[in-house]
Amino acid sequence: MAETSLRDRVHEIIFEADTPVGKAFDIILLVLIVLSVITVMLESSQEINEQYGHIFTVVEWVFTVVFTIEYLLRLWTTRLPWKYALSFYGIVDLVAILPSYIGLLVPGNSQYAVIIRIIRLLRVFRIFKLGNYLSEGDQLRRALIASRNKIGVFLFAVSLLVVLIGSIMFLIEGGNNEGFSSIPRAVYWAIVTLTTVGYGDITPKTDVGQFLSAIVMIVGYAIIAVPTGIVTNEMMSTEGDPTKKDGASGRFRGRKANFTNTQVCRYCARDGHADDAVYCKYCGGRLNP
Amino acid sequence: MAETSLRDRVHEIIFEADTPVGKAFDIILLVLIVLSVITVMLESSQEINEQYGHIFTVVEWVFTVVFTIEYLLRLWTTRLPWKYALSFYGIVDLVAILPSYIGLLVPGNSQYAVIIRIIRLLRVFRIFKLGNYLSEGDQLRRALIASRNKIGVFLFAVSLLVVLIGSIMFLIEGGNNEGFSSIPRAVYWAIVTLTTVGYGDITPKTDVGQFLSAIVMIVGYAIIAVPTGIVTNEMMSTEGDPTKKDGASGRFRGRKANFTNTQVCRYCARDGHADDAVYCKYCGGRLNP
Amino acid sequence: MAETSLRDRVHEIIFEADTPVGKAFDIILLVLIVLSVITVMLESSQEINEQYGHIFTVVEWVFTVVFTIEYLLRLWTTRLPWKYALSFYGIVDLVAILPSYIGLLVPGNSQYAVIIRIIRLLRVFRIFKLGNYLSEGDQLRRALIASRNKIGVFLFAVSLLVVLIGSIMFLIEGGNNEGFSSIPRAVYWAIVTLTTVGYGDITPKTDVGQFLSAIVMIVGYAIIAVPTGIVTNEMMSTEGDPTKKDGASGRFRGRKANFTNTQVCRYCARDGHADDAVYCKYCGGRLNP
Amino acid sequence: MAETSLRDRVHEIIFEADTPVGKAFDIILLVLIVLSVITVMLESSQEINEQYGHIFTVVEWVFTVVFTIEYLLRLWTTRLPWKYALSFYGIVDLVAILPSYIGLLVPGNSQYAVIIRIIRLLRVFRIFKLGNYLSEGDQLRRALIASRNKIGVFLFAVSLLVVLIGSIMFLIEGGNNEGFSSIPRAVYWAIVTLTTVGYGDITPKTDVGQFLSAIVMIVGYAIIAVPTGIVTNEMMSTEGDPTKKDGASGRFRGRKANFTNTQVCRYCARDGHADDAVYCKYCGGRLNP
Repeated sequence: MAETSLRDRVHEIIFEADTPVGKAFDIILLVLIVLSVITVMLESSQEINEQYGHIFTVVEWVFTVVFTIEYLLRLWTTRLPWKYALSFYGIVDLVAILPSYIGLLVPGNSQYAVIIRIIRLLRVFRIFKLGNYLSEGDQLRRALIASRNKIGVFLFAVSLLVVLIGSIMFLIEGGNNEGFSSIPRAVYWAIVTLTTVGYGDITPKTDVGQFLSAIVMIVGYAIIAVPTGIVTNEMMSTEGDPTKKDGASGRFRGRKANFTNTQVCRYCARDGHADDAVYCKYCGGRLNP
Repeated sequence: MAETSLRDRVHEIIFEADTPVGKAFDIILLVLIVLSVITVMLESSQEINEQYGHIFTVVEWVFTVVFTIEYLLRLWTTRLPWKYALSFYGIVDLVAILPSYIGLLVPGNSQYAVIIRIIRLLRVFRIFKLGNYLSEGDQLRRALIASRNKIGVFLFAVSLLVVLIGSIMFLIEGGNNEGFSSIPRAVYWAIVTLTTVGYGDITPKTDVGQFLSAIVMIVGYAIIAVPTGIVTNEMMSTEGDPTKKDGASGRFRGRKANFTNTQVCRYCARDGHADDAVYCKYCGGRLNP
Repeated sequence: MAETSLRDRVHEIIFEADTPVGKAFDIILLVLIVLSVITVMLESSQEINEQYGHIFTVVEWVFTVVFTIEYLLRLWTTRLPWKYALSFYGIVDLVAILPSYIGLLVPGNSQYAVIIRIIRLLRVFRIFKLGNYLSEGDQLRRALIASRNKIGVFLFAVSLLVVLIGSIMFLIEGGNNEGFSSIPRAVYWAIVTLTTVGYGDITPKTDVGQFLSAIVMIVGYAIIAVPTGIVTNEMMSTEGDPTKKDGASGRFRGRKANFTNTQVCRYCARDGHADDAVYCKYCGGRLNP
Repeated sequence: MAETSLRDRVHEIIFEADTPVGKAFDIILLVLIVLSVITVMLESSQEINEQYGHIFTVVEWVFTVVFTIEYLLRLWTTRLPWKYALSFYGIVDLVAILPSYIGLLVPGNSQYAVIIRIIRLLRVFRIFKLGNYLSEGDQLRRALIASRNKIGVFLFAVSLLVVLIGSIMFLIEGGNNEGFSSIPRAVYWAIVTLTTVGYGDITPKTDVGQFLSAIVMIVGYAIIAVPTGIVTNEMMSTEGDPTKKDGASGRFRGRKANFTNTQVCRYCARDGHADDAVYCKYCGGRLNP
């Protein structure tokens, strides 16, 4: 009984954020993840790596050990460990520690291992449970989901546009301008221009090319209004009006209202339970009190 | 009778997207068009062309043959072929296959032929009939049409502004900065700056020029809000309110409601028929059941 | 009487756009102005000027003569010529033709004369009377006027921000980066960055500088939303609601409703008369019927 | 009594802007601050400094003396000088004059002293009391505060995105492109691209890199709509509706209504008093009548 109780208390601390200790755990974990990602980023610089390489090795192993302990605790406290292990975060948690161990077996600090460590960053999303950001993120996500179709159509039209513009510019500039040496490159230029990024690595040299690209810019300037209009519109209709016309949004709203606690089932590792729930709504396991 | 029936079935498959086979046909066609455009794009790169030129020739002919068969089928299944042949898509379909045949008669792989093949891309718009994008695209188009006048006035004002700014900058920088060698070039710079593209191929060198261009940027930053405001505004009034003040939008709405089927008349090749229509509303021909 | 009648008819043609002939006159004038401005722009290019200089001289004189005749006609048909001559458009009309005549007296094709000719472009605004653009332009102007204060405060805050950012970047990059050689230049860089123009003529080289400028970019990305929000907001409240809270907008609305005719008083050359006005509301002169 | 009266009159002039003299004082001060900041900015340019260095020294001392007198007057007229001295503006006012005096003791015109002088600019915010900008600024600030959480979530998601994009681009371009020599640099590139700044100091060279960055640009183009949507949304709900749903905003509104006078307590140097207040609501001291 005592062991079970400890196991449940640990589960509450590392999986949930309703208790002070649980919150503290999440904050420490957030700091550790960010620090480990910064380490990986700095390590990627050859200069820094040459100077402080040995320090990085040590630091990296500290993070690996800490994250491994955390991973094992998560496995231990979940009643059905494989459910957690196969969940999205379970896999991300494993991927976060694997590269270091593989590096032991397969020597040579592969660049790819460095990158895989960056995936740790995805663990940060878990910390979102913390505080009041749940509903904010939810609202943004709903507005984006609701405008998904319209933005899709818009991006489709923009894609056609840049291919056409790029092809025409290839015809005009292709001969005497290295930057427009092929249509894909000209399309790349068209995207750089239409999105107003404007690197300047490829620029029109001929008068006709400059005239055409001036038109492209003004068009880009005018149509940038379209996605903004779409998202603003959706944001206002999903928020301003609780009895939104399409039922879907109403359901979202309802879900959001209940989705303010961070309890995670000890058996199946899923969240999203109502505040007054006693049993997991997915597997029927008893939730932490 | 059997022959007519086959002809009608083929018509239904290649022109409409209400049946499973019709949808499958449209999706395959979409993939073929995209693939053929990618081929043309890659072909335009001299390096790739030198290496894989012969493969491209073969692939190009495969697409040409497939599209030719499709074109002939469209001609055959339409009762009044010349109506289809002279419609917008009829011409685009023809232009899509012509360059290859002309290339046989007039040897030498002209760059212009390459470009004309890109026009195939326009055929993709036909696929829009597919799925639920009709109403989304329709809504965007309506918002753009409704804000057309205001965006026109805005672009007119912006045009005047860039000519004036360009002329002043030509005076200031013209003497000692190659980039501002003429007013048209200075206007090109003004457009690059005002739209926040900012290539950096032409930049002010003098202190006065940098000061003026800083003002231009801040102005551009402030007025980029105008088209966004226009489109957002129109989007909200065309969508949020079913009893919109000006009758035009109401009509659009009505039209949209009916415009959810993809039937195309066998006689005059026009679409936009009501769901319960039995005869073509343009030529009176009987629609496919 | 006949002479007076002719004078009034000419007045109606060149000053107003309610009759078919008046509209045609305005369109021709619009084309002439645009053509003459394009001429000036091309002339500014040294290459083109060396090749086709003599043609430009001829073309320029043709425009000058035509605009002079138009100016004299305007003077002649207005009953109180000096009222027109001293009005905004009267001065612009004069400035449009003066440089050519001064060029006769003071030889040497001064660059400044070239620029003054660009001012002709302002005459285009007069053509705005044409067609349905009056109310569109009016609406945009009202939205901008209504948001003037807020945009002012915003630009003020942005100005402080760029001075502070520029100063800090001068400290960080100043020593080893030529681009940040003084605070004004660093402020210029800050404006280029914050407005997302991004020429790339001045870029941070140090790690700290790149880190800071990344923050500046993200801030710029977030606050670009502010002017858009302001204008969209104003646009919706000035349009969507006829009984707007502050009286000013209501007055604008009323004014707009009456401001749909293009009559110009023959005596004092002012416009903005009501549709049913018989006498000028400014000087009491009888309007053209 | 007379001395007290003078002291109070001076307090009213330099701290408040309700009287004509107080307004004039604020405007003169605004001009002086802006001029002194411009002086500092010009002084930072080595060329200008070498030529006009001695003039700058004189001008700088004039400003220092004037601001010192102002600071002493502020100290003298406040009944509890240390309350003012320790307030935000009290410290800024001191910092504004300190560098010149320190420069006397520690010779050598340190660059840091130059920068500290820029902090004077913050004093400008005090002048905001002037005129009608209070409510405008207040409205903007409220809209930003209300959307703080959502913008925070958005920036958090963008941060994760740029780290992931940067890491992938480091893998793709790292080997043969100097610009992508480390992940932090690649992340800097990702920020430059996603915010559409687009310096062009680091650009992808490989085909895969250009393809990926084209996708990044289009994503950036689409998600720039999000902060705009957020702010526009908040702006409309904080303004358009006086009975806003969440109580917080209502309180802001109420506060704003009272916050239209510029009285500052003579004892504790705090502002924000109601129009009909006789005593300071913070320390109970009697306000200037």
